[in-house]
Amino acid sequence: MTDKERKTWVTASDVAVRAGVSRSAVSRAFSPTASIAPETRERVMVAARALGYQVNLIARDMITQRSSMIGVVTAGFENPFRARLLSDLMAALGQRAFTPLVTNADDPHQVRQSLERLLSYRIAGLVMTSASPPLSVARQYLDHRIPVVMINRDANLPGADVVVSDNAAGAAHAAQQLVRAGARRLAFVGPRTASYSARSRADAFAQGLQRGDAFDATLVRVIDTRSDTHACGIDAARQLFASGERPDGVFCSSDLLALGVIDAARDAFGLRVPDDLRVIGFDDIPAAAYDAYRLTTLRQDTQGLAHAAVDLLADRIQTFDGVSRTCVVPVTHVARHSCA
Amino acid sequence: MTDKERKTWVTASDVAVRAGVSRSAVSRAFSPTASIAPETRERVMVAARALGYQVNLIARDMITQRSSMIGVVTAGFENPFRARLLSDLMAALGQRAFTPLVTNADDPHQVRQSLERLLSYRIAGLVMTSASPPLSVARQYLDHRIPVVMINRDANLPGADVVVSDNAAGAAHAAQQLVRAGARRLAFVGPRTASYSARSRADAFAQGLQRGDAFDATLVRVIDTRSDTHACGIDAARQLFASGERPDGVFCSSDLLALGVIDAARDAFGLRVPDDLRVIGFDDIPAAAYDAYRLTTLRQDTQGLAHAAVDLLADRIQTFDGVSRTCVVPVTHVARHSCA
Repeated sequence: MTDKERKTWVTASDVAVRAGVSRSAVSRAFSPTASIAPETRERVMVAARALGYQVNLIARDMITQRSSMIGVVTAGFENPFRARLLSDLMAALGQRAFTPLVTNADDPHQVRQSLERLLSYRIAGLVMTSASPPLSVARQYLDHRIPVVMINRDANLPGADVVVSDNAAGAAHAAQQLVRAGARRLAFVGPRTASYSARSRADAFAQGLQRGDAFDATLVRVIDTRSDTHACGIDAARQLFASGERPDGVFCSSDLLALGVIDAARDAFGLRVPDDLRVIGFDDIPAAAYDAYRLTTLRQDTQGLAHAAVDLLADRIQTFDGVSRTCVVPVTHVARHSCA
Repeated sequence: MTDKERKTWVTASDVAVRAGVSRSAVSRAFSPTASIAPETRERVMVAARALGYQVNLIARDMITQRSSMIGVVTAGFENPFRARLLSDLMAALGQRAFTPLVTNADDPHQVRQSLERLLSYRIAGLVMTSASPPLSVARQYLDHRIPVVMINRDANLPGADVVVSDNAAGAAHAAQQLVRAGARRLAFVGPRTASYSARSRADAFAQGLQRGDAFDATLVRVIDTRSDTHACGIDAARQLFASGERPDGVFCSSDLLALGVIDAARDAFGLRVPDDLRVIGFDDIPAAAYDAYRLTTLRQDTQGLAHAAVDLLADRIQTFDGVSRTCVVPVTHVARHSCA
């Protein structure tokens, strides 16, 4: 091969000539579902490897009118939970030979443009994670008969499937554990108004405290934070401990919030965790395990969420019509020092 | 519009009919560089909006043989520095109307398949970040005359451009600050063998200590970690403090390592930071600012790295041939409690 030849794209016709087969045999060899004799496929593959041939997916997607790309809309990569979920989603999509087209919804100026671009690439489906744009966006895709699956979001959109962590079980378990660890004056911290997940966890936590085995424990405060960050946790702790009856147990709707609450409780108010204050988070991010925190938490199964979402999406790509389905993925209690 | 019509893709011909213009006028209206009368473009846009028309980028990429997609190869989203760099890269690409095709190199089984798929999508360029696959991968793209830019990686690949943080200045500054804070027995912790960035920082740190103003300080230990994680930091601290002459100042090639060193130094060896041990990290991840650590560090300018990489790539897409260029992006000293 001369240098010049190496530097251009090898075409399917080049492969056909070298393999001594027809152009359509090359197409069939690269199509997982096409009928072709194994010897022919093998000859094509040998020729393709020798020439350095790559299937032109752009061309294939255009001819078959079926893209292998899936849009993934996320926000806040710096939230370690979302980073892990994104990583697992990309792996789950790759295992099914889908190509993820990731869009970061953090930048409001870019998000509309990016979402239009996903439509322009004729994506086969869309995954929307928590903290991504409003449901009206999802509706636009559904109008084009592009399947949409939502992770940890409100289920209220006909035609879209939903995958959620078991917020109810996790929050009820948190209530139980805090009371068992001796807490009696309890607080919830999380973006109750801004986030569906936080709202579900807040409601289930309050209900859990009303049950029989926790009858002497009371929910004394609910702090509705702006978002899910460490800084919001610090703010929440200032509100909780600056005045009034101090809680002795806090359930936070995310680990980042819990780390902020712990930092402020110790540094600004001299409280000891867990002696003066028991804390439980949600997510199980890496920092939850660090010695400085050793945070008890509810671990979200990001692999489970990712695989459930991709399964639902793949079904819906086959058969678009049908009622919305919801898949609930269990969470795991991770016992560490902050609520021992 | 009937329900059925809404649910199919509107074509450029539909737009042409509604706008009363030719099919090619529609194409030109959507091509930023094409010549077309402003009134005609406006008529096309009004019709396109009314019909819900989306340009078919798949078709356009195929016809023009020029993709607007850029491959981004990264690894380890759970490393908050890499998550921030990825986020800034996606934003910088979006600002230039490129579409990022993100590939996670964490899974060795999937990475080859994913990289082949990028070729199959005829990407216009490739960004490789640190901790992503070997340079042989980059060579494959360059052979196809696809521009490659590498971030925080070794520059030794003809035809590929490189963007790096100023490791030399950062590490020399770390040496100076540790000595100024009173440290005399110094250690370096980082994946010296596995990572180009860590190696550059280790070398510059050692040189910084040999300079005149640090003549009474000595580099007593270099711990070559396996990777850049918190767990590796804990292991390194065990090696540093379990026996022999204990260092009183440590420079870590990443913040995650530094947090692990601090946790183990305090919890396993009862050392006080910064009184007994001064620590400086690199990156400035969110946890570096948490009250539990208050880590002094060198902040990498991920926006600067991202924009420099995309600028180099855009140039190289215009003109592929030419010598490799290297762009060095300054780092910023962030003074906190761990080396005060």
